[in-house]
Amino acid sequence: MVRRLPRRAAAPAVTVLRIGHRAGRDPRLTTHLGLAARALGAERMLLHPPDDALAARLAAIGHRWGGTFAVEGVADWRSAVRAHAGAVVHLTMYGLPLDRQLPRLRRHPRLLVVVGGAKVPRDLYALADYNVAVGSQPHSEVAALAVLLDRLRGLPPPATWRGGTDAIVPRAHGKLVRRAPEGTR
Amino acid sequence: MVRRLPRRAAAPAVTVLRIGHRAGRDPRLTTHLGLAARALGAERMLLHPPDDALAARLAAIGHRWGGTFAVEGVADWRSAVRAHAGAVVHLTMYGLPLDRQLPRLRRHPRLLVVVGGAKVPRDLYALADYNVAVGSQPHSEVAALAVLLDRLRGLPPPATWRGGTDAIVPRAHGKLVRRAPEGTR
Repeated sequence: MVRRLPRRAAAPAVTVLRIGHRAGRDPRLTTHLGLAARALGAERMLLHPPDDALAARLAAIGHRWGGTFAVEGVADWRSAVRAHAGAVVHLTMYGLPLDRQLPRLRRHPRLLVVVGGAKVPRDLYALADYNVAVGSQPHSEVAALAVLLDRLRGLPPPATWRGGTDAIVPRAHGKLVRRAPEGTR
Repeated sequence: MVRRLPRRAAAPAVTVLRIGHRAGRDPRLTTHLGLAARALGAERMLLHPPDDALAARLAAIGHRWGGTFAVEGVADWRSAVRAHAGAVVHLTMYGLPLDRQLPRLRRHPRLLVVVGGAKVPRDLYALADYNVAVGSQPHSEVAALAVLLDRLRGLPPPATWRGGTDAIVPRAHGKLVRRAPEGTR
């Protein structure tokens, strides 16, 4: 049972739950999922099964570039879904189109966005409050998550994220990174 | 020199150019890039260096799910950039924010969207007409491409794509795939 609030100005806070991670096979794919989640404003990523090396890689990104995004391993993903105080969104190409579901998703203050790989356990479709398709074609969970986060929250403006040592200064051509003064970190 | 047209109703046609692909190391990442490009309406993906196995995997997706998306290997990516009859967009976290660049990109009838990996050759920044950042933070090229395509073209509606044998019927819960009658393929 999920309580819907009237539409509010603030975008929903998003936690991502990645299930079916295979540390041996797809570390880079899940790393990209974490990078996209962080860059596009999610608060954290729960990871099943846990992968300490991957969590450390994302933490190192945060140390340099700032923010509070974190990866947390979960041993039992179904418990994590049930414990979530908010609506559960499962990204799947078999779900209802995002264009149609977005107004509903926006009404929730907190969303748990569940992304699986090629095969996901059948009961996830029933556990989820919303099964949402970002295009009804085979696609990438990284792409689906990115589009959903952009639609929900827009793109974060260029800025130094709190606690980081480095920030990008946007340029038409070339690269420019600004190092934060010691006192401001 | 790129000629800009006045703003037009039709969304730009997009070709994706993936450079720095490492067939041994990141087949799945580039596969996801191709899947996202196809699902979100790009016409084709040029791939440097060529990878026939990957092109075949994407072709198999097309045989089942339809459409005309194709992967083409290119031996010399700089020639492909120069030969492109349209504007060249390089997705990079160091570029100018997408929110600011999008109105300009929309004016072009054809875009070549170049995505690299962690390291890209320096001259790409100069070869590109637009260096565009989807968030000024480290992120995923799959995520960046997905957000750009969604912003440019929106999500394709659920439908049977021409030539495919299968199509998804969107559902609130569960999976439903419709097989096209023989005569309509």
